Amino acid sequence: MELSETYEPIREDLLQVEDKLKSVSEVEFHHLSELLSHILTGGKGIRPALTLLCGKFYDYNLDLLLPMAAGVELFHIATLVHDDAIDNSMVRRGRPTINSLWGQERAVLLGDYLFAKAGEFTATTQNLRAIMLFTLTLETISSGEINQIFNAFNLKQTREDYLQRISCKTASLFSMATESGAVLSQAPEKSVKILREYGYNFGIAYQIVDDILDFIGTEEEMGKPIGSDLAHGTLTLPAMLLLEHYPEDNPVKRLFQNEDREKYIRQAIDLVRNSPIVDECYNFASSYCSKACQNLNLLPDNASRRALAKLADYVIARRK
Amino acid sequence: MELSETYEPIREDLLQVEDKLKSVSEVEFHHLSELLSHILTGGKGIRPALTLLCGKFYDYNLDLLLPMAAGVELFHIATLVHDDAIDNSMVRRGRPTINSLWGQERAVLLGDYLFAKAGEFTATTQNLRAIMLFTLTLETISSGEINQIFNAFNLKQTREDYLQRISCKTASLFSMATESGAVLSQAPEKSVKILREYGYNFGIAYQIVDDILDFIGTEEEMGKPIGSDLAHGTLTLPAMLLLEHYPEDNPVKRLFQNEDREKYIRQAIDLVRNSPIVDECYNFASSYCSKACQNLNLLPDNASRRALAKLADYVIARRK
Repeated sequence: MELSETYEPIREDLLQVEDKLKSVSEVEFHHLSELLSHILTGGKGIRPALTLLCGKFYDYNLDLLLPMAAGVELFHIATLVHDDAIDNSMVRRGRPTINSLWGQERAVLLGDYLFAKAGEFTATTQNLRAIMLFTLTLETISSGEINQIFNAFNLKQTREDYLQRISCKTASLFSMATESGAVLSQAPEKSVKILREYGYNFGIAYQIVDDILDFIGTEEEMGKPIGSDLAHGTLTLPAMLLLEHYPEDNPVKRLFQNEDREKYIRQAIDLVRNSPIVDECYNFASSYCSKACQNLNLLPDNASRRALAKLADYVIARRK
Repeated sequence: MELSETYEPIREDLLQVEDKLKSVSEVEFHHLSELLSHILTGGKGIRPALTLLCGKFYDYNLDLLLPMAAGVELFHIATLVHDDAIDNSMVRRGRPTINSLWGQERAVLLGDYLFAKAGEFTATTQNLRAIMLFTLTLETISSGEINQIFNAFNLKQTREDYLQRISCKTASLFSMATESGAVLSQAPEKSVKILREYGYNFGIAYQIVDDILDFIGTEEEMGKPIGSDLAHGTLTLPAMLLLEHYPEDNPVKRLFQNEDREKYIRQAIDLVRNSPIVDECYNFASSYCSKACQNLNLLPDNASRRALAKLADYVIARRK
């Protein structure tokens, strides 16, 4: 399934979001413009698509939804820029990162600029609820990331810890994307809840698949190196299952204890690939996709609702 | 003159702002709480004081002004946390920086969290103009900081470049502090303008004095090392005047060309201290203080107006 297929009901609007994003790099100060042009290229646009789709059930007001969708995407990009700066990552979306080209300092400040710009787009909706959602989501994401760093190379983490972490760092932004679309289109509270929960569960599934792909994907598909979670000491679901399945002489244990990292990352990847862990993880992700969709039938039946259901399938099928 | 004297008309309210700031560190996640407790201590509170004072001319609504003032201070702290992370600074306000204690990664994420929290406080005012001002100010500050980094160790900068830079990185936040106070107290547009311009010119003067103190202050007074602008290749007014006064064999020129930095920083500091440059800079700063105050007499005559006038004197007199 192609992602673009599911975007059908909002194809034209997504192009307008892209135009809005492009216009962000049109600033007087040419160094900043260069950084912005570099970072505003690429991306699957799944978060802004969700905002637009979730805004299609009631009063579809593009004057509000377009800036919100652009704000959601800029928000996401800002977090990537800071993540890459922090992790000293070299490649993202198949292209060199801001920090690799211009240094960590500029990446941090560019991220700040992008958060502000995302906030500006959100503020143009003049919707106080969407604005508050924006700030609270940034609090959730950054505290989740701080949590992740404090737990790096910590073997004593439970599945609940994992779920809480990905809920903060990923699902919160997805649920903001969907909830803001609902709120801005005057959806009744019951529908807001359904769409927020869709976004939340979608986000959990999305992150679980991301964490699987860090083991079974290829650098070419992913646009970034494989095994990077292990390299950063982030204990994801596949690594947790690996620890459960092979409690003795486990490569994750060894590399978390700072033994020859490269060798044991390689071993862990091979072990996951040739085990039922991949299927277990996909089943787990699938259960969240089902949860995401379980109440969609309570919403008005339209092309957008069908697209949301299809998108949930895409999460599992995606290879990048 | 003691700063606390000028705070007289808002003494009680400033204590409430402090309480609000303290409450920020009361979060469940204890690692984050620890970081927050560390960073929310100290500070002169000059920016929130300005917000409160500027809100005292018309409808002094503490339900709006207190969160705004807290938001302004958190915003400022967030920029300091990121600045220190970027510059790898070890000491701030006489205490070890977040990055020196917990590493650059956590400092970047904590800054993000603080920006969000500042945004949340601002959003609780439910005032769209104040909210928009907040996002635009963060854009201005971060683009100004990016500009500064791109011009590090660049000898070919004019006074206009300098003014533009400090306008972005410092004056913008001061003018946001004053304007937001005015806006939230229903000040008429003419008064909003006077208070915004007060904040702007106050901020320019404040930064010029900061830049002088980086030459003539002591580490003890400043709570951070002296000569750090030169060490980072930031060409401030005193350094610019040094280049103008001593065009031949100039220590700034030499250290910007990467010769023995420590030696030439020492030389530059000595040269500035024993030259009329200090007075020139103070005169320049004074002219902005005068500008700041020139229209205050058009505002209602009250204790707040007198405090603002006194605060402008403080900017010049301060030693830290």
